[in-house]
This record gives sequence, C-alpha cells and structure tokens, in this order.
Amino acid sequence: MRYDFYYWPGIQGRGEFVRLALEDAGVSYDDVCRGRGGTEAMFRLMKANAANKTPPFAPPFLKAGKLTVSHVAAILHWLAPRHGLAPKSDAARLWLHQLQLTITDFAKEIHDTHHPVGSSYYYEDQKPEALRFADQFRNERAPKYFGYLEGVTEASGGPYVTGRRLSYVDLSVFQLIAGLRYAFPRAMKGIEKKAPRLVAIHDRVSERPNIKAYLASPRRIDFNENGIFRRYPELDV
Amino acid sequence: MRYDFYYWPGIQGRGEFVRLALEDAGVSYDDVCRGRGGTEAMFRLMKANAANKTPPFAPPFLKAGKLTVSHVAAILHWLAPRHGLAPKSDAARLWLHQLQLTITDFAKEIHDTHHPVGSSYYYEDQKPEALRFADQFRNERAPKYFGYLEGVTEASGGPYVTGRRLSYVDLSVFQLIAGLRYAFPRAMKGIEKKAPRLVAIHDRVSERPNIKAYLASPRRIDFNENGIFRRYPELDV
Repeated sequence: MRYDFYYWPGIQGRGEFVRLALEDAGVSYDDVCRGRGGTEAMFRLMKANAANKTPPFAPPFLKAGKLTVSHVAAILHWLAPRHGLAPKSDAARLWLHQLQLTITDFAKEIHDTHHPVGSSYYYEDQKPEALRFADQFRNERAPKYFGYLEGVTEASGGPYVTGRRLSYVDLSVFQLIAGLRYAFPRAMKGIEKKAPRLVAIHDRVSERPNIKAYLASPRRIDFNENGIFRRYPELDV
Repeated sequence: MRYDFYYWPGIQGRGEFVRLALEDAGVSYDDVCRGRGGTEAMFRLMKANAANKTPPFAPPFLKAGKLTVSHVAAILHWLAPRHGLAPKSDAARLWLHQLQLTITDFAKEIHDTHHPVGSSYYYEDQKPEALRFADQFRNERAPKYFGYLEGVTEASGGPYVTGRRLSYVDLSVFQLIAGLRYAFPRAMKGIEKKAPRLVAIHDRVSERPNIKAYLASPRRIDFNENGIFRRYPELDV
C-alpha cells in the first residue's frame, strides 16, 4: 500500500506525529503538499460534494486508495497496526488510542502557548495573553501531562509507555520532548528531571535506524516559528 | 453489559455527548459521580499504579467490566457499534470517528470562548480575552464548523449526517445546537439559517422517544455557567 500524506508544507506541526510513524515503519509515502500543486490538491479534498463524501475538516490526513483518514490520533490508530507499531489485541489498541488522544490535547495546549486567543490573530497581537497562558503551561499543564505519561510508563513496567514493545505513542513522546526542548529549553530542564522514563524513550527512539536516517534527511523540516513548537524566549522565563 | 460512567457531577459538559448515546440506546448505566463517593472513586481511577495500568487522563470515561475507555470520541467509537448507533463496516465507523473528533475540536473551541487563557483562571479574570475569542468564534469558527457538517450531510444525501441512518454523530449535532442556542441565542439565529439540515437533525433527535424521555427527566442536568455552553450575554453581541 502506498500512502499520500497531506499536511501544510514548511512545518512539522501536528503532521509530524504521523510522519514519524511512516518513517519508522519504513513505508513509502508522498508528502504531497511539498510537491508542486500539492496544497491546492489538499484544499480540493477538503470540499464535500457528491464525489467526495468523506472530506477532512483539516489537515493532516492520509489517503490510502479510496480511504481518507484525518485527525492525527485516528490516522495512527488505523495505520500503526498495519506496520508493527501497535499490539494485536483490540483492548491494547484502544488503550494506545486513548494515550494518543491525550497527546493530541497536550499538543493543542502547546500550540495555545503562543495562540491563546485564536489562530486568526498573529502572535504579536496576543502577546500578553500568551505570557499568561505560557506561565500556566510551564508550571502546571506540561508537568501534569508529563507526570501522567511517566506514571503510565512506570505502571506498565516500561521501558516503553505501554510496556516492553515500542508503539507509535513512543514516537509521539519523542516528538513532544524534542519539540518542547526547542520551544522551552529553560523550563524543560526542570520538567525533564521528573520524567526520566520519558527522556529514556526519547533517547531510544532517536537511535532507531529509520528515525535516525529521517532526522538527518531533508524530509525532516527544522523546528521554526510557524509550527506548534515555537521558540519565543519571552514565554520561557 | 452494565456501564459505569464517570464525569463531573453538576454539568453536562463533554460527558453529555456520551450520556446522549447511552440514553438513546436505552442502556443501563450508573452516572457514578452523581452518587455518594462517586467523585472520589473517579479520582482513584485516574491514578496509575500496578493495579491500574490504563488510567484516564481526565473524565469522562466509561467502565465496562475490566475495560476503561476515556475521551468522548473513543468512548463513542467503542460503545456505539454495540448498540446500533454505528454502521457495520470498518470504513464507515472510521469516518464517523473522524466526524466526532472534529466535533471534539469544536467543543473545545466552544469551551474556550469563556476560557481562552486557561481553565486555571476564572472567567472574570479573562474577560477581555474572552470577548475577543468569542467574536472570532461567532463570526468565523462556528460558521466554519457548521458549514462543514452541513456540507457533509448534503453530500451524504441526508437526512442524517452520514446518510439514511442515525448515528451517534447526529446525537452530538443535537447537543451542539441545543448548547449553542443556550449560550449564543443571538448569534445562533444567523448561523442556523445556513445549516437547515443540521437544524432538522436536531429536531428529529429531540423527538426520539428515549431522548425525549431523557430530556424531561432529572437525569438531564440543565445548562449552566459551569459547563461548556455558558450564557454570558456580553459574549453574544
């Protein structure tokens, strides 16, 4: 099966959680919007009509033959079992899906550190609100999410989040830590101390051959100030 | 199968999307936190430990025997096929799940109209930000989400969102319209005009015998200013 992946070109964004799974699985995929005419094609696929009855509300989405799947957690829930990144039992897969949905909520809050009042306004037009939101994020929300994932990893016996075998959730943990180190280098020093199991997962994932090759390739877009994880030093004090 | 449902007592909140499915299905369930000691039990279940390896990050969650399922969309994805509220094919179920995940994002934005800077601060301490967020919500975001769901319903041929048969997504559409009519009565007058198919779904759902009985019962908590849908007239100008 060949995959067409649709997401904004130029940023890692939410799409990166999917890219990491595709890359780790060694799957062949086309990152469509990074090619000519890709973004226009993406917008066409988001229009409902008689010939397109299951349009995504927003990117990222994945096309596999006639099937279109949108929403990061749903994409991973569908994709991972096909490529060895999820366990066999339905109950175990449902549990992974719940963890990924929690990571989705976490990612949304990370995004909101620079855009609390909404995506339609520039960061520069919501800076005082962002300072307040980020303060709460660094001191309460990020430690709460990390504490939860660390606790789950401890309860499973580790070394991965759900136990002895790596799943797509571990790839997402890698991305959370890599991204927050970029965006909040100062705050992360303290936060990481309380999440040693997650930091170990980050390190293991970064050493996986396919991930290592991906990170060194031009396919991995650098972190930048258009994505979810943005380095605005004033938010990291 | 008997279900134990956990959610904050005293509000409809995100839990209501699940309650509506349980009620429409005529399923026996215990709304645990509305009974003595329920909320304490809920907090215990959210702690990871060797005896509780799949703790929810947050309510709502549903317990069915040994299985715990959290996140509204995941609960409905798991629950609905067991009670005739989802179609048979995997592809059709996956599509419903994507729609519900979009509704999840919509509900989060509805919540953020009164809490843009975060749940840790009172509404009264983020009023100027809420005014700005709500303005964008009424004029751009709500019409965009409704336009999307209306377009999907039109493309499916209706009368329900995905076609001829009602699914749990239609129950959620009912709740979105009922809730937004409560919170933004003024703005909804204009928004509804462009979503006649969704309004018709709202009306059909409200006439279903089990839903009708539920809405008239004390089990249906009234809308109030602690939930997702809050009537703050200053946000609806």
